Parts: sequence; structure tokens; C-alpha cells
Amino acid sequence: MEAAGKPVVNLISKPENMLKTVYTACRTCYSADYPIDIYNSVDDKEKMLKLIERVISSGHYSTIEHIQVSFAISNVSRACTHQLVRHRHMSFSQKSQRYVKEKGQFDYVIPPTIARDSVLQEKFIGFMHRISEQYQEFTEAGIPAEDARYVLPNAAASSLVASLNLREMIHLANLRLCTRAQYEIRTMVKMMCAALLEEELWLKPYLVPKCERLGFCDEDKSCGRMPVK
Amino acid sequence: MEAAGKPVVNLISKPENMLKTVYTACRTCYSADYPIDIYNSVDDKEKMLKLIERVISSGHYSTIEHIQVSFAISNVSRACTHQLVRHRHMSFSQKSQRYVKEKGQFDYVIPPTIARDSVLQEKFIGFMHRISEQYQEFTEAGIPAEDARYVLPNAAASSLVASLNLREMIHLANLRLCTRAQYEIRTMVKMMCAALLEEELWLKPYLVPKCERLGFCDEDKSCGRMPVK
Amino acid sequence: MEAAGKPVVNLISKPENMLKTVYTACRTCYSADYPIDIYNSVDDKEKMLKLIERVISSGHYSTIEHIQVSFAISNVSRACTHQLVRHRHMSFSQKSQRYVKEKGQFDYVIPPTIARDSVLQEKFIGFMHRISEQYQEFTEAGIPAEDARYVLPNAAASSLVASLNLREMIHLANLRLCTRAQYEIRTMVKMMCAALLEEELWLKPYLVPKCERLGFCDEDKSCGRMPVK
Amino acid sequence: MEAAGKPVVNLISKPENMLKTVYTACRTCYSADYPIDIYNSVDDKEKMLKLIERVISSGHYSTIEHIQVSFAISNVSRACTHQLVRHRHMSFSQKSQRYVKEKGQFDYVIPPTIARDSVLQEKFIGFMHRISEQYQEFTEAGIPAEDARYVLPNAAASSLVASLNLREMIHLANLRLCTRAQYEIRTMVKMMCAALLEEELWLKPYLVPKCERLGFCDEDKSCGRMPVK
Repeated sequence: MEAAGKPVVNLISKPENMLKTVYTACRTCYSADYPIDIYNSVDDKEKMLKLIERVISSGHYSTIEHIQVSFAISNVSRACTHQLVRHRHMSFSQKSQRYVKEKGQFDYVIPPTIARDSVLQEKFIGFMHRISEQYQEFTEAGIPAEDARYVLPNAAASSLVASLNLREMIHLANLRLCTRAQYEIRTMVKMMCAALLEEELWLKPYLVPKCERLGFCDEDKSCGRMPVK
Repeated sequence: MEAAGKPVVNLISKPENMLKTVYTACRTCYSADYPIDIYNSVDDKEKMLKLIERVISSGHYSTIEHIQVSFAISNVSRACTHQLVRHRHMSFSQKSQRYVKEKGQFDYVIPPTIARDSVLQEKFIGFMHRISEQYQEFTEAGIPAEDARYVLPNAAASSLVASLNLREMIHLANLRLCTRAQYEIRTMVKMMCAALLEEELWLKPYLVPKCERLGFCDEDKSCGRMPVK
Repeated sequence: MEAAGKPVVNLISKPENMLKTVYTACRTCYSADYPIDIYNSVDDKEKMLKLIERVISSGHYSTIEHIQVSFAISNVSRACTHQLVRHRHMSFSQKSQRYVKEKGQFDYVIPPTIARDSVLQEKFIGFMHRISEQYQEFTEAGIPAEDARYVLPNAAASSLVASLNLREMIHLANLRLCTRAQYEIRTMVKMMCAALLEEELWLKPYLVPKCERLGFCDEDKSCGRMPVK
Repeated sequence: MEAAGKPVVNLISKPENMLKTVYTACRTCYSADYPIDIYNSVDDKEKMLKLIERVISSGHYSTIEHIQVSFAISNVSRACTHQLVRHRHMSFSQKSQRYVKEKGQFDYVIPPTIARDSVLQEKFIGFMHRISEQYQEFTEAGIPAEDARYVLPNAAASSLVASLNLREMIHLANLRLCTRAQYEIRTMVKMMCAALLEEELWLKPYLVPKCERLGFCDEDKSCGRMPVK
């Protein structure tokens, strides 16, 4: 497969009874009841949401760590995944360039600043072909994939399964939806948020750039969307 | 409520499709396919288990971090929870002694070495009543619960919601099922393992004391179950 | 040893060349130079501080993770340490109540709300003696220390070595200097900050309650010091 | 700067009194003494080492988390750093390809399987020049560095400051000194170990491949150095 539009992002796993678990966690801190009894006796979605929202607004994020979600992600560049795996509270299983040999033209991601200029885009695509040829020449000469890959570019597409709890999900959104984040990771995180919000809309107020939560921008160079501190 | 038998442990949350998610994570590392396609095309439980077991035996535990489970736990002493919360890869929401005032006799846990001697047990129970009286005396004198609790004992029962991924679950079992662990946390972790194995029996070979995985005991004082290194 | 005034807090370890290491980390991100050359060529304290302050104000805290400091802490209650060890980015080595048998009267911490009333304080001290007698009775009856300790109170004093990097140090200060934190952990964290500031005064603007950094209070019940969001 | 031999690795920061801090941490767990008194009264290096070695052999690694060390690393490929930053207990400050524009030929790392064949090496070097030209062409056309870098290869050299505590240092060595690890990260970790051992020789028995600690190999494909489990 070759060209490369947007990332492919799917939410593949989340716990059953997400709200009930978070509600039980919140109430356990302030209640004499057994958590299993809290869990078994609650069902009112409105009531659960009301408590959860109050607890999160007070900054008590530990209560939402109990929920972890998993995404299947493809068609993102290695430039993007090198940034993503810096999130140390996440879990990753990523396609290995050491063990998976590229058999034909490798997939790649074209940055929009290049894609929007047809001349530059043509050059970019041609150069990806040139790199592919060089890679194949090395593997055909007996160089193992793990070494031939040294010529593969940052643009080379990767796939991964990524899991994170809701606290880290909010943190990820706060950082990577910022206009100062690179467009590709920003796009990917937007799609992760959208996939999650499709099922858990109550998270909407939290999956925003950090400036919306802080009320000000703390970046050295601000985009102007919010007042500087 | 008063006396105190064994811990109360319930598995309240786990992801849907646990095996499919882990299988997808394992295969993503070694495959050119998109993880979402791996996820959508697999269904053979035997096949999934075979791969997962091979990957875990090779020590590649990161693939099982994608699965997080949550337990509702009650009737464990504060001595036990002070040990438990040292597991830094876990998430906790614990009943607060600052915010939850004990209204009558507080719950407590009696250590078996005391419970098995009726004279000592009677003394222990009597003393718990004595402590309760002292606590009540302080709160009635206007001392806030968060300070009156300074007289409450390690034996005082607590409740919590605890979540951890399967990698940490195996680590927890390896450490706390060791005969050198204190009886109470050992009992609690046994019950956590039992609750999980009821639904996911394939984890059985991993939820064992560390000596069974290592093939030897690395403790300074060995219980003799396995040869010292 | 018996009574119990304030915590005992000493900074026992910090890296050599703290500023040079942080400065090198900050500059490495934005420079074509080798970090070892940056490290070897910088000496101007003013220049280093200026860059570091700009980087931290922009929220790029990862650059100060390179500095870890260690504290020796004594005379804090087990109530306090149960809170402290919830900080999962810290490292702890704590006096074990399983392995260290109390030989005479155990040390303990008296909450100020009790200490300021001489009648209540006398009751409190008397009750600590009563608990000590009960503990001794159990150990003399052959009950191991790890089980006899179930009667020991939250007030029982503990000792620990605690280490944390500067990012977590700022987080700890932000949370625990808040007037909503319990007085004892607040006192202890104040002393940790003071010990560190004695040697690294430049950290002063960051070792403050979270409301000072946010510009507003996000607690459910505010102390009124700062406007609610 | 251009070509690329071995990584450049320097230990730039470690705490004062490393042994005293670890010894104090070990003893605090089993002693009624204040840790500050333990710290102030010990000086006998032999005695400290003897206790520390016993504690580490028993698997109580938390006691060595109190020591964190920092390395300045250069001349390692982005392939290598993408692996390195997966170590989530480490702290990193890495040269940014977004903010640092390559002005001439970028540095790069040549894999030994290619370097040892003069024809392939020549091709590799020529191709690096070709990539550099393409990168320059894009930046000259106004494409920002953060997007032009999509053509840069895995071979492109990077620099970083990396910090980790001794527990993670041992873990890193155990995993990355394994003959199954890729040659470049293996070389880099060997150099990190060597730099540390130059000052702290007592760590030698721990900075080894995992098979030496386990007594067996747990890899799916063993190199044969140790018996398979």
C-alpha cells in the first residue's frame, strides 16, 4: 500500500460500565459504604455524571484513572510516533521496523505544507520511491531489515495499539490539541478524542487544549487564542 | 458494623474483548497489517491464546498492559492498604479517614495469630472498643475526624477501588503471594487472583509467587519451598 | 524516645552541578551542539537561570526531571506517611513496623487541635501509653511484631528516606501546601521546601500552593485565599 | 559535522555521597534510628557495600531508586532514540527536529553491516547526501523544518540528556545488553554502563544481560549463551 491520507484511528477497547466504576471510585473516598454495595446500587446516569463532574472539576483526577481505553492506530508517521511514545503513562505495542521487512513501496505520510503544492508533492512522492529502491537494494544485498531501515524516512507510516487511562487521555488532549503541537499528532489526537466522545460524550469539556482549562496560555509563543498569563 | 473476617474482593470492571485486544497488540509488533484489521479478523480463541502465551513467556509484558482491571475491596486493615498503595503502577480511590467520620464502633481486622487464641482475641476486641470510645470522646469534644483518627489503629478496616493492568497484576501476585509477604495482603491478593481467574483462567500460570517464575528463591530468608539461587 | 514536636527533615542528597545539568537539558532541545559541549562551556549562573526560568514558565517541566533530591524524614505519623506514599513518582524507603519491634513507648505525633487543649493532650498522651502497654502485652505473649502492630495508632511516628525529582517536588508543593491539605503533611512539605530552598533559592516561585500558579482555586471548598474559577 | 562513528556518552551528573544515601535507605527499613543519624554516623565503605549488596541480591531494588544519574548522549540515530524513549522510567531532553533546522549535511549513523562493505557504505553515504539535498530543497522552498524533516532518515543522528535511577539503569542493562537487542542501543548502553562503572565499580555484577541474572534465557530465539528455561 502506498499513499497516505489521514491517520486511521479506532477505539477497540473500553471497560464495561465505565460510569459506574468511576462513580464508585468517587463515592468510596467519602462514604462508609462498601464500594461493591455502591457499585451494585447505583444506576441513575444523571446522578453519576453530576458527582463525577464535580470531582473532576476539583482536580481530583485519580478517580478517572480506573478507566483505560485502547486505540488501534495506523497510517501515522514515525515522526509522529516518536512524539507519541514520549507519553510515559501510556502503553504501546508498535509495528517493528526490525522484524517487519517492507516488501514493496512502504507507506508514508505527506505533510500538508508539502501536499498543498503539487510540484513539491510530486517531488516528495518521487523521493519516497527513491528511498524504497535504496531500502530494497540493501535488503537484496543481504542487509537485515533492522539495518536497511536506517535509510527509511520519518515519513514512513507506522501502526500501533495504544492504551491510556482517562487522566492521561485528558492530559494528552490538553497538550496535543494546542495549536503549537505538530499538525500530525494534533490530527491523530483529535481523532482519538472524537472516537471516544462518540461513546462517552460527557468527556467533552475535558478533551480540550490546555489553555481552555487554564483560562490562559502558558506557551512561550502563544497563538493568540487565549490571553497570555 | 463491627467484627472482621476475610477481605471482601470483587472484580468490578474489565475491558470487553480482553483476548482480542492483547492478541492484536502482540501481532501488531510483527505484522504489516493494520491493527484494526487484525482485530476485526480474529476470533479463534485457541489461536489467540497460543500467541499470547508465547509472547508473555518471552518476557514481553508490555503487550498485556493494554488490559486494566478494577477491584472493589473492603474489610482490609490500614496496615494492609499502607503496603498496597506502595504499588506505584496501580490506581487507587480509598475511603478517607479525614472525611468519613466513624459513627459507632469502627470495623477492624484481627490478625490470625491473635484470633486463634481466645484470650488474646478477647483482649484485642476489648481494646478496639476502648479505642473507639477514645475516638468518640475526641470527636464529641469538637476535634475534627481528621485529627481524632490519630488514635485509630492499624487494624481499622478500609475500603478502596483499585485498578491495575495485567503486567502489574502479575508483578503484584509474584511479590505478594510469596510466603514472606504478610498474611493479610497475601490473602487479599489471592482473592484478587481468584476473582480474575474465574473469568480469565488462561492467566493461571502467571499469577504465582515469584519463585515459581524464577525457578529459585531470591529472598534473604527463604521459606524453603524453592532452592535458593 | 517519646513525645513528638515537629517533623525532622534533612536534605541528604542532591546532584552536583544542578543548574548546569538543567541548563544543558533545556538547551539540548533547541541546539545543534552536543550536550556535553553545552555542559562544558557554560558557567554563567545568571544566564543559566534566565533560560531555565523561561522554560519552566512555559510548562516544559520535563527538563527539571533530571534533578532528583533525597530527604531523610523522621517524626511523622503513619497517617501522614500513608498520604505521602500515594505520590507515585517518588521513591521511598520506610521504617518497617513488621521488622522493627517497638521496645519501649513508641514515638507518636500529637495533632495541634489536641495539643492546644491541655486536658485533651493529657488524655491523648495517656492513651498512647495504654496502647504501648497493649502492644507490649501482645509481643510478650509471643505475637510477632508484624501482628502486634495492628493495635498501633495512626499517630505512631515513622521514618523514611524519600526521593523525588524537581518536577514532582513542584507538584508535591502545589498540592500539599494548599490550606486544604492536612496540617501534618503540609508542615512536612513546608520543611522539605525550606531545606531545598536553603541551597537552591531559584526554585522559590514554584514551591507554592497550586492556586498561586493557576491564578485561581480549583478546590470544591475554597479557603478564600484566591478567587474560585 | 558529518560522518558517524560510535555514540558519544558522558556521565554528567550523579548525587554526592551515593553509597551513604543508599546505605541509609537500606538501614532505615530495619532500624529504630532516625535516618539522618544513620546517615551522619556511617563512613565505612566496606560495611556500606556489604549491606547494599545483600539488599539488592534479595531483589529489594526500591532502595537504589534514591540514586539518579544523568548522561549526555550524542551521535546516536533516531532509530536508536525511538527505542530508548520507550523506557518510561527515564527522563529525556532530546534535540528537536522541529526546532533545530539542519544547516548543512546532517549527521548520521552507519550500521556496521553496511559499514563493513565498502561498496555498500559508499552507497549509504551517497544516499545520505541525496537526502540532505532533498531536505535543503524543501526548506529553501519555504517548507518549515518540522515538515521538511519527514524526508530525514532513521540514520539521522540525535543528541539527548537522559536520566534514570539505578533500578532502571539495571533494568536497561539487563534488556539492552542482551545479544538480541539492536547493535546500536547495545553499544550505547554498554558505554553508559562503562561510564558509570568508572566511578561506581560496585555496580558491576548488576549491569549485565538479563540471562546472567536469571540463570537462563527467556527469549523466544536464544543466542545460546545461556540455557533456555
